[in-house]
Formats: sequence, structure tokens, C-alpha cells
Amino acid sequence: MSDRLRPPSAESVAEAAAGLLIRVRETSPVTHCITNSVVTWYTANVLLAVGAAPAMVDIVGEAEPFAAAASGLLLNLGTPSPEQRAASREAAEGANAAGTPWVLDPVAVGALPVRTALAAELLGRRPTVVRGNASEVLALAGRGGGGRGVDTTHTAEAAFGTAAELALRTGGAVAVSGPVDVITDGATTIRIANGDPFLTRVTGGGCALGAVMAAFLGAASKHGAVSDPLLAAAAATIVYTVAAEDAAARASGPGSFAVGLLDALFALDPEAVVARARVSVSLTAPTAGERA
Amino acid sequence: MSDRLRPPSAESVAEAAAGLLIRVRETSPVTHCITNSVVTWYTANVLLAVGAAPAMVDIVGEAEPFAAAASGLLLNLGTPSPEQRAASREAAEGANAAGTPWVLDPVAVGALPVRTALAAELLGRRPTVVRGNASEVLALAGRGGGGRGVDTTHTAEAAFGTAAELALRTGGAVAVSGPVDVITDGATTIRIANGDPFLTRVTGGGCALGAVMAAFLGAASKHGAVSDPLLAAAAATIVYTVAAEDAAARASGPGSFAVGLLDALFALDPEAVVARARVSVSLTAPTAGERA
Amino acid sequence: MSDRLRPPSAESVAEAAAGLLIRVRETSPVTHCITNSVVTWYTANVLLAVGAAPAMVDIVGEAEPFAAAASGLLLNLGTPSPEQRAASREAAEGANAAGTPWVLDPVAVGALPVRTALAAELLGRRPTVVRGNASEVLALAGRGGGGRGVDTTHTAEAAFGTAAELALRTGGAVAVSGPVDVITDGATTIRIANGDPFLTRVTGGGCALGAVMAAFLGAASKHGAVSDPLLAAAAATIVYTVAAEDAAARASGPGSFAVGLLDALFALDPEAVVARARVSVSLTAPTAGERA
Repeated sequence: MSDRLRPPSAESVAEAAAGLLIRVRETSPVTHCITNSVVTWYTANVLLAVGAAPAMVDIVGEAEPFAAAASGLLLNLGTPSPEQRAASREAAEGANAAGTPWVLDPVAVGALPVRTALAAELLGRRPTVVRGNASEVLALAGRGGGGRGVDTTHTAEAAFGTAAELALRTGGAVAVSGPVDVITDGATTIRIANGDPFLTRVTGGGCALGAVMAAFLGAASKHGAVSDPLLAAAAATIVYTVAAEDAAARASGPGSFAVGLLDALFALDPEAVVARARVSVSLTAPTAGERA
Repeated sequence: MSDRLRPPSAESVAEAAAGLLIRVRETSPVTHCITNSVVTWYTANVLLAVGAAPAMVDIVGEAEPFAAAASGLLLNLGTPSPEQRAASREAAEGANAAGTPWVLDPVAVGALPVRTALAAELLGRRPTVVRGNASEVLALAGRGGGGRGVDTTHTAEAAFGTAAELALRTGGAVAVSGPVDVITDGATTIRIANGDPFLTRVTGGGCALGAVMAAFLGAASKHGAVSDPLLAAAAATIVYTVAAEDAAARASGPGSFAVGLLDALFALDPEAVVARARVSVSLTAPTAGERA
Repeated sequence: MSDRLRPPSAESVAEAAAGLLIRVRETSPVTHCITNSVVTWYTANVLLAVGAAPAMVDIVGEAEPFAAAASGLLLNLGTPSPEQRAASREAAEGANAAGTPWVLDPVAVGALPVRTALAAELLGRRPTVVRGNASEVLALAGRGGGGRGVDTTHTAEAAFGTAAELALRTGGAVAVSGPVDVITDGATTIRIANGDPFLTRVTGGGCALGAVMAAFLGAASKHGAVSDPLLAAAAATIVYTVAAEDAAARASGPGSFAVGLLDALFALDPEAVVARARVSVSLTAPTAGERA
């Protein structure tokens, strides 16, 4: 939870998105990813397209120093081999010690025991941002049985109260993806209505967004600008989902959409981001969980 | 081997392909894949494009319960790390206990000792479908020295007798890919002449077909329709290779073909599948191996 | 260092590139890759597009015999898990015992301790070609602190002297990528000015070039033609970077560039390679390091 006295306006959120996009392109933040084997290639290309410098360092003995030196870190639990589990713990430690902001993406937690235990442990280390779909966010908080793998069986709004509670516990932000993305730090909530259904028809559509969040957090925190997890996560979401609309407009199907999203992120005009962002901001009413 | 009294007509096979495509799109079967690191991204995207829900769960402690809950399972031995080998054994057990149909793709068996031993062991657990090129099918049966990695040095027809024998041993179907795909359950054989040489110029062209077979098996067996491995494997092959023809017609090379195949699978019209399927069906004459 | 009495002409280097491209297409050299999890899919597709037969065999017990039987080998240290580290040692041994030429790509060495130690060890086994950016080549020689992951903070020319020294130590060639690629065997240096900045905006742009070098080395050495590491590495670089120019001319961004590079490699006309190669050749003046 930040110390804002009042929530930012929708306009200022859209402007922060454009501003951080420019900053990412100018500073090329080193974005350390420990992510699942399905999406490494696409995630790295998304980061390059948006202007960041990806580095997939996922082995024991290297993850800690690299996380400490990186601008931002993503821990995605999609295919958590024993080596990646140990490297993720190392990386979270290195990031916390050095003040590197980090994103936890608890892919498919709930039904699957190994990653569920790891996600709970990493949650205790207070990730700067948690990113998932509603099923994953509910499962991370110990509610609901999880979705069907990476699939979700809930809308983002269904996890809103739980997301706010988790954010208050971590002191960071929680982002729930869906047709309308919901991002909250427990005090303020930002909703973003951009995007395209094709994002759910390519693998890693959500996973790559987590990496973009890490890049935006890195650009924000390492260069004297806003170090506000809520704003950085919202900015990344806006940039990514506006670009997705461009890609969908030109796509013939999910294959050309995936390729076109890389082109669209590369070409994205910051002014178009401001003009086209569909953002709403609200104060988050306290819930039972928050008062507890 | 199924209990059919006479083989299906070519028309009914084509209609089953269209019907199962519709069913996959309607039911989005969860398709559990343990597959090689080269093709995970493309395989997941192929599954999404055809309408299935991919999940790459390849670690010990998660593979067994997930396979038991999934609609279909693929075990592809392309890069069998120790963790994947243990997870594959787990997954086969979970699948067999729960009745989840599964596909074994014995990539590059023969010359390479670790996967060859694992493939023999998994074959003993009676996969619902075995899918490979001729060299792999021959090597799996202990004949021939295997191909050059994933390459094949034989036509599909060269492995026909061996495929029929293997099918009688497993009680399932064996699919041999080539310019004409040959799929047999030992009693009935279906040949499919659709496809395009570009399928051999993109990596995972065959591996992704194995995943589609798992999705089609899952759609067939979990929803009261045909639970006939031969028909499901043939249906997956028809859908995949007809879409490959669409992609090839628009491609400038293997890169645009790979992307276009995702678009083509997504857009594929079931009526076009029926009209364009090039199928022949025959009773399988007993061979020396069968009688033995 | 080869036994050439005088350096080849720029024309003869361009002609060797065209000739080796034809030979790769005709002989489809089996190219064994142990490479990082980010780029396996793209690397395999690049190899297929250029006409080679990729095989990603990266487990203990299989890497040694496969390297011995392969035409060429790539060891890329981008994500060196314990299994891959052991497999890489095995593969280098198998390659050296059988005379298989091999490429070492020391991704991000310098700052990261595990791969830096492994790279030093593998360097001692005398790779046929070392390929990296300037930061990596400097770090491999124990100079400079390495770059930001796969990124480089130096031009290729900055590592020229070090590259020449390394080449004299290994007896092979060292290729330093940059806007102008510099390739040297310590006695002769070839500079290649083809390419496009988009190669740095797709992940694996450099990693895949290492695999193409392994394929070209394989085609050169197994079939009675030039077995000259310098020429084979230069030929691969020319073919790859000329194709990159074709892809860039048609691309709307990094996504369509990555796809288009596969198409361009597939379609590349050997005569265009000769006509468009921008090559210069020079004798390498001895440096302090060489005399030491």
C-alpha cells in the first residue's frame, strides 16, 4: 500500500503507462526471468519488443547474484523443476536483499501440490507484485481449488476482495487478469478494459505480461521515478493490452496474433497509449479480510 | 484392437474427424503434455489453436495426479531429462489408473540409449496410441537402428507390419507419419494422404500432432462418443494435415508456414475437413508377427 | 590456425559461403545442439530452414555417443542446468574423440559464476569455433566483467586482439558478433558487414548463428571440402546475415522479422549470397598476447 492521500486519476494512470514505456525503451532494464519452459522464447521476445533486456538465469549459484543486480525479476511457477525451485528461492532472497522489485506468477496453483507449496513460501517473502488469473489468486489465498491448469474458471472481479487482502499482506500490488484486468494495492484499485480474447488463445499471453510488469517495475524503481507497484503493474498492463488490440486488428488467427503482438509492442506510440487506455480508478472499500 | 465387425468407411472416418474437431472446440479437453524442450511453445499453441486446453506438467509429484484428472496425455521423449523421465512414469501410472487415454511419441529411439530404454518400459504400460515416424516405430519394436535423431530414413509403409504388431501388443493404435500417414490397430488400417512437405521443415511438426491426438482421444473418451483409438488418431491426423495444406498454400517459407498452421487450425471449417480428407481404409492382413 | 600461405580473397570467402550453403542443403548435416531453453525452438527452426538436421540431445548418457556420430555440435551455455553441464562435458569429449567439429557459445560469461567456470573448462578442450559478442569473448579470456546477460557493452572490434589470442590458444577460430562481425583464426581475420539491427531485437539471434556455424562446420568437414574453421564460421555468418537483410526488408517489427528470417534462409539464393556479401580479409598482425 502506498502513501498516496488520494487515488490517481485515470488520466494520470494512462500517462504513467506512456511515460514508463518511454523509460523502458530509453533505459532497457535488465529483466531477470525464471519462467516456465513453455513460454521462455516468447517471453524474451516480448521483453525485447517492449525495449527491455531479458535474461533467463534459472540455475542455483547464479540466480541470487543476478537477481540482486537486475532491474526487475519475474518468478513464474509454470514448470517448477527442482533446479528452478531452488533458483527461485535464491532469486527472491537476492532481490529482497538488494531491493530489486519482483513479480510472482503462481501459474496453476491450487490443484498441483509442488508449486502450491512453493507459491505459498514465496508469497511469504512479499513479492512486489502478484500476477495471476482469478482462480490462481483465489488458490494462492487458500480459497477455491484452482483452475484447470493455466485456465481460469472465474472472472477477475470474483477475486477482487481476495486480491486486496493479499496486497495488504505483501505490501505490494496484486494483478488479476481477465476481460477487465483488476489491479489493487488494497487501498486503490485500477481496472483496465483493454485487450483482446486472442490473448487467451496463445500460450504465455499472461506469462509474458508478468515479465513486462517486472521490466516496468525495474524501470520505475531504478531511475528515480514512481516506485509504486500499483502504477507500474497497471502501466505494464495498459501497454501490453493496447498493443494486443493492434495485433488483433491485423491477425488472421492466433499464430499471426502472437507474431503481431511483438511487432505492435515494438511500434507502439506512447501517445496512442494515453488516448486509448480504458482505465478506471477507485478507492478500495475495506473488507473483512482487511480489517482482520 | 476394437470390436468392430467391419472397418469404417472412408466417409465415416472423415466425418468422425469433423465431429471430433467440433467436440474439441466445444469441450476444450485438458491435454496434459510431457514433451521435449524444443517444441513446448509450439505444441501448446497448436493445442490452443485447435480448441484444446494445454497443460505442460512435467515434474515429479504433480504429473501423476494431473494425468489422472486430464482428458488426454502426451508423453514425448524428445529431451528426456531425469526429472521428465520420472514424471513420465508417474503420468503413465496416473493415466492408466484413471482411464485417461495417452499417446507415446518415442522421439529418436533406437540409437539413443536412455530414451530407448524408457520407451520400451512405457510401451509395456500399453499406450492408447503410439505415434512416430517409420524409423522410430521400427526401433521401438527392436528393429532397425533408428533414424538420424528425429529424422526418418524410411517411408511410413516400411513400418506397416511392425506397426500392426505393436498395436496388437498394446491393444491400442499405432500411427506412422510420412507423406501418407498409416494408422492401424492391427485389425483395421487407415491411410491419410493429406499434408505438406513443410511439416518436415518446421520443428515439432510431428510432435505437435501427437499432442493433437491426445486432445482428440480426450474429447472422444470423456464425453460418451467414440472411444476408439484408431478413429481418434486418424481424426487428429486428418484435421492437422488438412490445416497444413491451408497453411502451405499461403506460406512464403517454413516460418510463415509454422505461424499459418496455427491460424489454419483455428479457422478450419469442419465441412472442409469432410470434403478434403483423402482417406482409405483397409482390413489388415495378418502378418507373421501377428500370428506369432 | 590453418596452414594457408596467404589469406583468401574476399571473393573466395563469399563463394565459399554460397558453396557451403549448397552443400548443407544437399547433405543435411546432423547438427547436435545443447543449447539454452529460451532458444531451442527457434534454433531448431533456423537449422531446418537452412537445410540442416537439428537434434537437441542434452542428457547424460546420450550426449557423448550422439556428438561422436553428428556432423557438427553446438554447446551454448545460456541456461546451464546441472544435467546440461554434465551433458556438455560428455558431448565435448565425444566430439573430440570422433573429430566432430564443435562451437562453444559462452552466453553471458563473466558475471555469472557457474557458466564462467564451465566455459573456461570447455575452452580448454579446444572448441573448433568460439562464438560470442565482444563482452563474452573478453570475459572468456578473463578480461572485463562481462556484459549485462546476453547483452554486449562493447563493439566487436574491441575484442579483436583477445579473439586472435584465443584462436591461437584453441587452434580454431573465434567469431565476435556486432554490427560488423569479426572472425579470426589468429593469422587471418575476416570482417562481415551484412546483417540488420533486428537481429539484436529477437532472442536467439546470436545463439542460432552459433548453430548454423556448427552445421556449416559439419558440412565442410564431413564431406571432403574445406575443413577450415575460419572459412566455415565466416560462411555461416554471411549466409545468416544476408538472409537477415531480406527478412528486415519485409518486416513490420521484431516478430515478423523472426518469422521472416526462417523464410529468407529457406529461400536464399546462393548467387545472391556471392553478390551481396560485404567481406574484407586481412592478415592479423601479431599482438603482445600472441607472442607471449
